Amino acid sequence: MTQKAAIIGGGVIGGGWAARFLLNGWDVAVFDTDPEAQRKIGEVIANARRSLPALYDKALPGEGTLSFHDDLTSAVANADWVQESIPERLGLKHKVLGGLSELAPGKAIIGSSTSGFKPSELNEKGARAIVAHPFNPVYLLPLVELVGDPVATQPAADILRDIGMFPLVLRKEIDAHIADRLLEAVWRESLWLVKDGVATTEEIDEAIRMAFGIRWAQMGLFETYRIAGGEAGMKHFMAQFGPALKWPWTKLMDVPEFTDELVDLIAGQSDAQSGHLSIRELERLRDDNLVGMIRALKKTGSGAGDVIATHEAALEHPSAPDLPVTAKRQIPQSWTDYNGHMNEAHYLEAAAAATDRFMEMIGADADYIASGKSYFTTENHIRYLDEMLAGEQLTITTQVLKGEGKKLHLFHMLHGDKGTITATAETFLLHVDLNTRSSCMPTDEVLEKLTAFAEKHAGLPMPEGAGRYVGQRS
Amino acid sequence: MTQKAAIIGGGVIGGGWAARFLLNGWDVAVFDTDPEAQRKIGEVIANARRSLPALYDKALPGEGTLSFHDDLTSAVANADWVQESIPERLGLKHKVLGGLSELAPGKAIIGSSTSGFKPSELNEKGARAIVAHPFNPVYLLPLVELVGDPVATQPAADILRDIGMFPLVLRKEIDAHIADRLLEAVWRESLWLVKDGVATTEEIDEAIRMAFGIRWAQMGLFETYRIAGGEAGMKHFMAQFGPALKWPWTKLMDVPEFTDELVDLIAGQSDAQSGHLSIRELERLRDDNLVGMIRALKKTGSGAGDVIATHEAALEHPSAPDLPVTAKRQIPQSWTDYNGHMNEAHYLEAAAAATDRFMEMIGADADYIASGKSYFTTENHIRYLDEMLAGEQLTITTQVLKGEGKKLHLFHMLHGDKGTITATAETFLLHVDLNTRSSCMPTDEVLEKLTAFAEKHAGLPMPEGAGRYVGQRS
Repeated sequence: MTQKAAIIGGGVIGGGWAARFLLNGWDVAVFDTDPEAQRKIGEVIANARRSLPALYDKALPGEGTLSFHDDLTSAVANADWVQESIPERLGLKHKVLGGLSELAPGKAIIGSSTSGFKPSELNEKGARAIVAHPFNPVYLLPLVELVGDPVATQPAADILRDIGMFPLVLRKEIDAHIADRLLEAVWRESLWLVKDGVATTEEIDEAIRMAFGIRWAQMGLFETYRIAGGEAGMKHFMAQFGPALKWPWTKLMDVPEFTDELVDLIAGQSDAQSGHLSIRELERLRDDNLVGMIRALKKTGSGAGDVIATHEAALEHPSAPDLPVTAKRQIPQSWTDYNGHMNEAHYLEAAAAATDRFMEMIGADADYIASGKSYFTTENHIRYLDEMLAGEQLTITTQVLKGEGKKLHLFHMLHGDKGTITATAETFLLHVDLNTRSSCMPTDEVLEKLTAFAEKHAGLPMPEGAGRYVGQRS
Repeated sequence: MTQKAAIIGGGVIGGGWAARFLLNGWDVAVFDTDPEAQRKIGEVIANARRSLPALYDKALPGEGTLSFHDDLTSAVANADWVQESIPERLGLKHKVLGGLSELAPGKAIIGSSTSGFKPSELNEKGARAIVAHPFNPVYLLPLVELVGDPVATQPAADILRDIGMFPLVLRKEIDAHIADRLLEAVWRESLWLVKDGVATTEEIDEAIRMAFGIRWAQMGLFETYRIAGGEAGMKHFMAQFGPALKWPWTKLMDVPEFTDELVDLIAGQSDAQSGHLSIRELERLRDDNLVGMIRALKKTGSGAGDVIATHEAALEHPSAPDLPVTAKRQIPQSWTDYNGHMNEAHYLEAAAAATDRFMEMIGADADYIASGKSYFTTENHIRYLDEMLAGEQLTITTQVLKGEGKKLHLFHMLHGDKGTITATAETFLLHVDLNTRSSCMPTDEVLEKLTAFAEKHAGLPMPEGAGRYVGQRS
């Protein structure tokens, strides 16, 4: 049977919860007194629809039903989960959580999105809530801090895993749980930096995202430092940087005493956490993660990805005397698959980039595309002749088989480290008008450059494998 | 002319600098008294060779020459950049930086990798060094904090940009610069959490990487909070969370006074930083970044990517009465290109995943591959019939054209939102032994399941477009 979540308070956080449940197949009932609630939640859900399913290579369950209620009783009727996301005022929380505890079915988990209050505070007037503290955007970030009675937090953790989240059940309650304590420390230190004129908000953001932010996205603080300790590990790291605790490196000066006991506690926990991997293995995992994430950020031009895109644009294009060299690059680890070699789709990714480069060479470049003209690929044929491995150098040369009018017929040869041809990609493109999305003639400038290549290549023999169909005998 | 960097001190940081310069075409001379230096630097450079070039879709310049020296004079001769990365002891830094300032050519930048000392401290015995503080791994992370005399930091910034880094020139010197002040605050708070038994190192790392770590990888602190403020922006965010500064949300309690002046300063800087994008645009950029990074982490099974992979494995496979449904998924934003539609390579990525699914259906699954058998694709033919857009639902059905012995010949049909066929992918695979990398017969179990499909599909008509070659008239 379809499960039901009641969302009490529909701001950015409540809306994110609504989207998270709805897109995982739950029915969602929203209670919010704001007359704008429906519009606001609609906008959050629209964002979620374009991004959450895009994380998956499979379809999520069909969406549940979304309803809006102006009384609590109908909102929470038959609910399996009730989530409160109202403003952070303890008196208000007492009132609302008290009401929900009376009205909601006994089976329902009652979660509070509070950033800071402890369950003992939330429940001091008799409510039966747990803390279920998520992070914005709730529909994408997995973490939920669960604090409270294990009778409720354990089934709550199961439900959260079912909707693709990562529950972290806290050992004891504490103001602001775990993550917000760290955030608050950074926030305070950052306020000092801005107030003292040391850095602007933008400079602080760059200092974060260009360095430790992207490191923390994949490992966090302690595992990162374990690697920094090198072969000697966590103890060595702490011996090196322990003394800095007494130096004025932050304005926030309450420092735990750096005893042998604390060092042993941390080193022991770090061994339990990461000891199954050697430092070398951790380094390679970290590097593969960083490469994958920075390559992703390159597509949007953000942070470290923007640095690489800018640097790459300034790198020289390779050249060769006969056929044009349309690519020269290294195979990333992330392009390999379960067979231990470059995945078939990335042969085409590399060939498609070579097509882009050829287009650039005949003047169909970024400015040309911005002017409303481009080429669309209508057909590709790839022959896989040899395996390519991560780290291997790939070079692509391109022969024009036909280049006249709207038609562009290319034959890419992919060369590996040994100089042999590891694959061929035959591609057919039509020149299009990007406004009408139909074919049209290229400009005279493009046609002239294309014709020069086509005439130069007209005397070459037809490359082996051109014109093949799939399954044809060799 | 090839430029030259002298690397003084060859630990993890010095080695990272050496790799960064070397792989960007600089000659690198290393001075280190550790007899193990050559081995250690070799390992760092090996890591760098497998990861740094993988960030680029173009080749980096040819590597420079690496040399090791046991005297400072020959190491720094003709150097354009001299980088000191020795232990954090001020007396030692004075001695070494003093020597370098005398021996190095006048044109050379002298940078110190110090995490905490200010240029005025480093130079109090007459050296002419600037702080050039990088982050581990230096060969991947772009940030370098530059502090000191602008006569040196400005040309230093240009050089760093040339080797693909992001220089952040500080307005004034301060202990621990910017990033390490924030890191130190988090480190202290984390030590309290461990010491007080609130959380283990692993729990703290999960709290970071599953939530704010990945958020900070792409935007940082202030831009993230600007979004959290919603349409009302940064001022609203601060009004909401300003009061929390007085609450016991960290152990680190030195709090700047939260005056209107400070709020205006921050809101103004935030407008200058991010005001060119609306909150909706910032949200979408953030979401595209998160989706791209989490998809990258899915490949390595790290952090949020591991959460998605685990969740996805539990999702149901679609089914249909006639042809098997081998994929059902949403097109991610990151799969689109400059033409505003799904890039040609991702049609094949989706089709390749459909092939994987079909292999699973006939028992050639992860366990089978782990046992040393698999299928390798030898040929693909893709026809692009209609554009697909980000957010669109893609469904793939698969017809077996041939399935006997070692041969597997499939025809995938890609269906879009409107139910029409947007592309076809014809693929030919050979069954292989993963140890010998040559073709061999599948197991009887796989052959039996494959034969069942092949027989069932034998009566179907040949799909339109099967057996086509590129450029064939339609």
